[in-house]
Amino acid sequence: MELHLFDKQVYTNRRAILKNAVGIDGIILLLGNEDSSMNYKDNCYPFRQDSSFLYYFGLNVPTLAALIDTETGEEVIFGNELTIDDIVWTGTLPSVSEMAEQVGINKTKPYGQVVDYVNKAVASGRRVHILPPYRPENKIKLASWLNISLNDVAGQVSLKLVKAVIAQRLIKSELEIAELEKAVSISVDMQLAVIKNTVPGIKEYQLVAKAHEVAIAHNAHLGYPAIITTHGQTLHTHYYGNTLQEGRMVLCDIGAENNMYYGGDLTRTFPVGRSFTSRQKELYEIVLASMDHAISMLKPGVRYRDIHLAACEKLAEGLVQVNLMKGDPAEIVAAGAHTMFFQCGLGHMLGMDTHDMEDLGEQYVGYTDTLLKETSTFGLKSLRLGRELESGYVVTVEPGIYIIPELIDRWQAEKKYLDFINYDELNTYRDFGGIRIEDNFLITDNGSHLLGKYLPKTLKEIEALKG
Amino acid sequence: MELHLFDKQVYTNRRAILKNAVGIDGIILLLGNEDSSMNYKDNCYPFRQDSSFLYYFGLNVPTLAALIDTETGEEVIFGNELTIDDIVWTGTLPSVSEMAEQVGINKTKPYGQVVDYVNKAVASGRRVHILPPYRPENKIKLASWLNISLNDVAGQVSLKLVKAVIAQRLIKSELEIAELEKAVSISVDMQLAVIKNTVPGIKEYQLVAKAHEVAIAHNAHLGYPAIITTHGQTLHTHYYGNTLQEGRMVLCDIGAENNMYYGGDLTRTFPVGRSFTSRQKELYEIVLASMDHAISMLKPGVRYRDIHLAACEKLAEGLVQVNLMKGDPAEIVAAGAHTMFFQCGLGHMLGMDTHDMEDLGEQYVGYTDTLLKETSTFGLKSLRLGRELESGYVVTVEPGIYIIPELIDRWQAEKKYLDFINYDELNTYRDFGGIRIEDNFLITDNGSHLLGKYLPKTLKEIEALKG
Repeated sequence: MELHLFDKQVYTNRRAILKNAVGIDGIILLLGNEDSSMNYKDNCYPFRQDSSFLYYFGLNVPTLAALIDTETGEEVIFGNELTIDDIVWTGTLPSVSEMAEQVGINKTKPYGQVVDYVNKAVASGRRVHILPPYRPENKIKLASWLNISLNDVAGQVSLKLVKAVIAQRLIKSELEIAELEKAVSISVDMQLAVIKNTVPGIKEYQLVAKAHEVAIAHNAHLGYPAIITTHGQTLHTHYYGNTLQEGRMVLCDIGAENNMYYGGDLTRTFPVGRSFTSRQKELYEIVLASMDHAISMLKPGVRYRDIHLAACEKLAEGLVQVNLMKGDPAEIVAAGAHTMFFQCGLGHMLGMDTHDMEDLGEQYVGYTDTLLKETSTFGLKSLRLGRELESGYVVTVEPGIYIIPELIDRWQAEKKYLDFINYDELNTYRDFGGIRIEDNFLITDNGSHLLGKYLPKTLKEIEALKG
Repeated sequence: MELHLFDKQVYTNRRAILKNAVGIDGIILLLGNEDSSMNYKDNCYPFRQDSSFLYYFGLNVPTLAALIDTETGEEVIFGNELTIDDIVWTGTLPSVSEMAEQVGINKTKPYGQVVDYVNKAVASGRRVHILPPYRPENKIKLASWLNISLNDVAGQVSLKLVKAVIAQRLIKSELEIAELEKAVSISVDMQLAVIKNTVPGIKEYQLVAKAHEVAIAHNAHLGYPAIITTHGQTLHTHYYGNTLQEGRMVLCDIGAENNMYYGGDLTRTFPVGRSFTSRQKELYEIVLASMDHAISMLKPGVRYRDIHLAACEKLAEGLVQVNLMKGDPAEIVAAGAHTMFFQCGLGHMLGMDTHDMEDLGEQYVGYTDTLLKETSTFGLKSLRLGRELESGYVVTVEPGIYIIPELIDRWQAEKKYLDFINYDELNTYRDFGGIRIEDNFLITDNGSHLLGKYLPKTLKEIEALKG
C-alpha cells in the first residue's frame, strides 16, 4: 500500500473552507469506505475510498473515519493500528498517526472511539453532520452510532454539509485539473488501443482486455465498468460476449481513474472493419455536429440544460435531413420526440467520481434551488447536469443516436410522436446500433478547454486509425 | 448479460440432494448477491453472484433470492422483471420466469414477496434455514425479513444447512472438474505471460496489466486480487508500485475465474532477470522438494493436516542444510519454529471460490466435528484445510519460504526458538523476499491429478522461459 497525496496544506485548506461554510454548528463526521467482499469476507474487490473522504483527508486506506469539530476546530482521524498478523499478511504501513500527519492532522484515535465522540455530541444537543451513505456497512455504522433505525439514517443527512461539500468540490483546483489531464490522457491511450485492435472476428471481451491492460500498465484502473459493445444502443451494457462483424460499429465508453483517483470518461464509436458504411457516416456526422455545437456553447453563465436542448435540436435537424424525423427541430425537441433517438442527457460533472458527487444527490450537484431536476420527462429526467456553468467546472459532452428496437415497437404501438418520427424509415434502421462521441472539458473564464491529449473524432481521423 | 448454465437437470439434481440432506424441516432460503457500489450507488463493481446460489440456482443476475420448501417440495425464485427504462439502460434479458425455467424452476415471484413466505413460515413455527451472510446488504435484508436485530442474524444461521451444502459442494462432479481444468489452464496462460514479460526495470503493475489482459481475453477475470510482487514475503500484498530489479525475484499468485465461476489459483516465483542467484536457487529447491513431497502424499484417507506437517518438516530439513535452522526437523516442526519461514497453511479447498466455501466457515469446510481447527497456534491457525482427503476434493498445494524482517526482529528480541533458528545467518537474508510455488489438484481414487496445463516449475524450466 502506498499513499498518493497532495501536499498536506491542500487538505488543511480544504477543511478550513468546509468548516467556514458549515459555520459553528456541531460536528462533521466523514466516513471512509471499508473493503467490500466479493464471494466471502476476505476476498475483496479492489479498495475504493470514498471521494469526499479523499478530498478532505486524502488517505486511501480502508476503515477510517474523521471528525471536524466546528466549534473547537478539533480534527480527529479514527483508525486501528496494524497487528503483527496484519504485517505478515499485508505488509507494513505507516501508523495511523503518521498517515494523519501527512494530511495535516495530529490527533488520532482507535476506530471504536467514533461512537464516544458521537454520543458526546448528541448528549450535549449538538448537530452531527453526515453525508448520505451509499455503502450498506456505513449505513449500519451510522445507525448504530446515532442509535437510530436504518430507515432513519437518510433523515439524518445534513443538507448543509452536502451543499458545502458540493460547492467546494465543483470548482476544480489547478492540482485537480492536472490530475484530470493525466487521467483523460490515459483514457485516450486506452481508446487508441481498443480502436487499433478492433478487427472483424474478434470478441468484445478481447477489446475489454486491451482497455484494462493499458489502464493498469499506467498504474491506473477503470473508473467505471467498460462499455465496449457492438450494440451501442444499449446505454450501459456490460456484456462483452459478441463477435464483431464487418459492417457493424463498436461503441467504446471507457475511462481511467489514476492513482490520485481522478477519472476520464471518453466515448468513441468506430467501424469494426476499416471504414464506416454510408448510413453510419450520415448518423455519425449528425452526432458530431451536435457535439461541436454543444462544445461551442460551453462557457460560464450558460445553463447546461440549454446546451443539452440545443444539442438535441442539432440532432433533430440532422435526423430530419436523413428522413428519420420530420417537422421543425425546435418543435421536435419541445415535444420530446427526439428522445426516440437520444434517451439520455448530454453530460455530467466529472472529477474523482465519473458522475462527480452523484452520491450526494443529482439535484444538488447538477441543479440549484431554483432550477430543479425533472423527475418524470423521458430524456430530461436522465440529464444529470442542468445548472449554469462556472469557471472551474469539469463536464462531459456526450451526444448520441441510439436505435432501440424495443422502444420503436412500444412507441409505434402507442402511436407516439407520429407527427415527428418516420417510423417506416426508422424500422429500416432497427439493427443499426448506436453512436456516442464523448470528450471532457474544463470550463474556463471565457469558454472551455479540452482535457487530455486529443483523441481522433472525425470520420476521416477515425478511419485513418484503422488503416 | 448472458446466462452461463449447466443443463437444468444438474440444478434440479443438486437441489434434490440438498432437500434430502436437510430432511423435512421448514424452508431453505438462499440469497443471491446484489450489485456492490464503488463510489456512488450506480457505479458498481463487476457483479459476483453468491457461489452457493450459483451452485443450486445457476443464475448470474443480481437481486434474486430462492426458496426450497422441504415439506411441499415447492421451489420459488424471487426477482423483479425489467422495466422499459432498464431495457434502455442495460438491454434486454430473459424474464425471471424464463431464466428460472432454465434451471428447472417453474414458480417465480416478485422479490418483495420473500418476506411474505418468511413470515408465513415463522408464523407457523417452521424453521427458516439460512447461510451466513458476508455482504452487509444481505445481513440487513435477513434481519428485516426475520424481524430480528442485525446482531442476531448470525445466531439464526442453520448449521444443518451449512453442513449439507458443504458436504455436497466438497465433492466436485465431472462437469465441475472440466470447468476447473479450463480455469486453471487460463491461469497457466496468465502466469506464462507474466513470467515472459518480466524484465529488469519494469513496474509490478505492468505485469498485473498482462495478467488481467490474458484473463479477460479468455472471457474470464481474476478470481482474487493479483499478488505480483518483488516482496514475496508479504503474503497478501496488493501493492504494485515497485520497479523490478536484476537480482531479485517476483512472486506471482494469480488465478482466473472462468465464465462458469470456477477458479484456478497458481503461484510461481521467478527471477527478474534471466537466472536465479545461488541463494535463490537453494531456497527454491527446498520449497520445491517440500511441494513434491506433499503432492506424493495426496490421496483419499490422508489428513491434509498431516501433509501440511510433513511439508513443513521437509522445509525444516532443507533450512537446516542451508544453516538457517538447526536441530531435528521433526522437533523444529513440533515446536513451531519453522513458522519463522512458513507462517501459513499448505493449502485449501478450491472450487467456485478460491478459498472454497470460506463464507460457510473454515471449521466446517476444512475440518470435522472430531478434528478442530487450531485457533491460536501461529502457523496452524492459518491452515484452512486439515481434514481427511476424499476422492473428488480439489485442493491447492502451496508451500513457501518467507523472510519477514519484522518477524525476525520481534522473535529475536523475544529470544524465541533460539535452539532452532540461526538468527545470525537469517539476518543476512533480511532482503531475500519470499518464494511460493502452488498448483491445483483433484483428489482421485488412488492419488491426485494435476489440474490444467502443466506450468513449468523447476529451476531449469523457469529459467528456460526467461531465456
